[in-house]
Amino acid sequence: MDVNGRFITFEGGEGVGKSTQAKLLAEKLVTLKQKVNLTREPGGCEIGEKVREILKSNSRSIDPICELFLLFAARRDHFINLITPWLKEGYFVICDRFYDSSLIYQGLLKNVSIEDIMKLKQITIGNFDPDLTIVLDVSTDISIQRLITRHLVHDEYDQMSRQKHDIIRNGFQKIADIFSFRSVLINAEGSEKSVFKKIWKAFEKRIGI
Amino acid sequence: MDVNGRFITFEGGEGVGKSTQAKLLAEKLVTLKQKVNLTREPGGCEIGEKVREILKSNSRSIDPICELFLLFAARRDHFINLITPWLKEGYFVICDRFYDSSLIYQGLLKNVSIEDIMKLKQITIGNFDPDLTIVLDVSTDISIQRLITRHLVHDEYDQMSRQKHDIIRNGFQKIADIFSFRSVLINAEGSEKSVFKKIWKAFEKRIGI
Repeated sequence: MDVNGRFITFEGGEGVGKSTQAKLLAEKLVTLKQKVNLTREPGGCEIGEKVREILKSNSRSIDPICELFLLFAARRDHFINLITPWLKEGYFVICDRFYDSSLIYQGLLKNVSIEDIMKLKQITIGNFDPDLTIVLDVSTDISIQRLITRHLVHDEYDQMSRQKHDIIRNGFQKIADIFSFRSVLINAEGSEKSVFKKIWKAFEKRIGI
Repeated sequence: MDVNGRFITFEGGEGVGKSTQAKLLAEKLVTLKQKVNLTREPGGCEIGEKVREILKSNSRSIDPICELFLLFAARRDHFINLITPWLKEGYFVICDRFYDSSLIYQGLLKNVSIEDIMKLKQITIGNFDPDLTIVLDVSTDISIQRLITRHLVHDEYDQMSRQKHDIIRNGFQKIADIFSFRSVLINAEGSEKSVFKKIWKAFEKRIGI
């Protein structure tokens, strides 16, 4: 894809501060007079929002492969109708979660084959990949403590046991390792400001403006 | 999969009489004291119905790969939560459209790679396949005439041009040929009764009761 923009994703488990830090990065780039769009998955587009609704409202526990297809439907819509046009127009596109999250939540956590997930990735976005993936990492204790503070107990992932939190955390650490050509692992246990400082440093080194 | 039931699908373009003939086959089997469930794609289950709604209501033309993922999400839900349990309980399951329709509508008609569609098939149902696929075939003229009679002009596929009808018809003929181990092509231009006679003959030969 011939693009001028740059695509930056934020990944990590619940309570690591993805949304907050994604927003801080967007704001920082705006103050530097850059064109920025901040978005999230699933959602950010018509089909994504409908898929989000299905996943939240389904009356029984959803089959992981069915869930995977729904998420990739949303991802494809998002990619074709928002991300790609924005990148072509030269925007910095900052996205809260991308396909790495499928590798962790449907793959590691729900035992869908990683090979199958990568097949869907290939069908959906081909060889396209983020220019930079910020993987935020905090201890399971801190992650759970943050979720309790935020009263986030209504979502499937927020109710997960400590063991699941560990699987997710280790999984994202592996993602940062395997995809190190595009990823950076950031310890996100400090204050919002100190974490953002590390993110900005990584951004300047890998992307620049 | 260890099942006692048998899975029969009906395929073909619009206006070939799939729903009518599927119903006739179900009724015939019921009169012969058989356990039968009649279903359809997309739909027939919670996620299928929601996907059907998305496909009908989306405000802009949907990307073919996104559409494909939505249809396979519905298919997977249908397969796991209805078709498989029914087959295990020894039902004849009769389904109006299955993955052959994706090969034609998203593959041939909208240029999604057939190889990619078969990858999704494999992820969704593995090596499972219908025991019998009845492919109904009528000339494009008759097909369009039937659609006009039925006032079916509100659906994307029903509004297609003659050329598209031809592509679909030829595609389903090829399906019947390539998958001849499980498929039978039936000329469906005659009366409902005469067409059903041919279907029943094929059913007795391939499946029996």
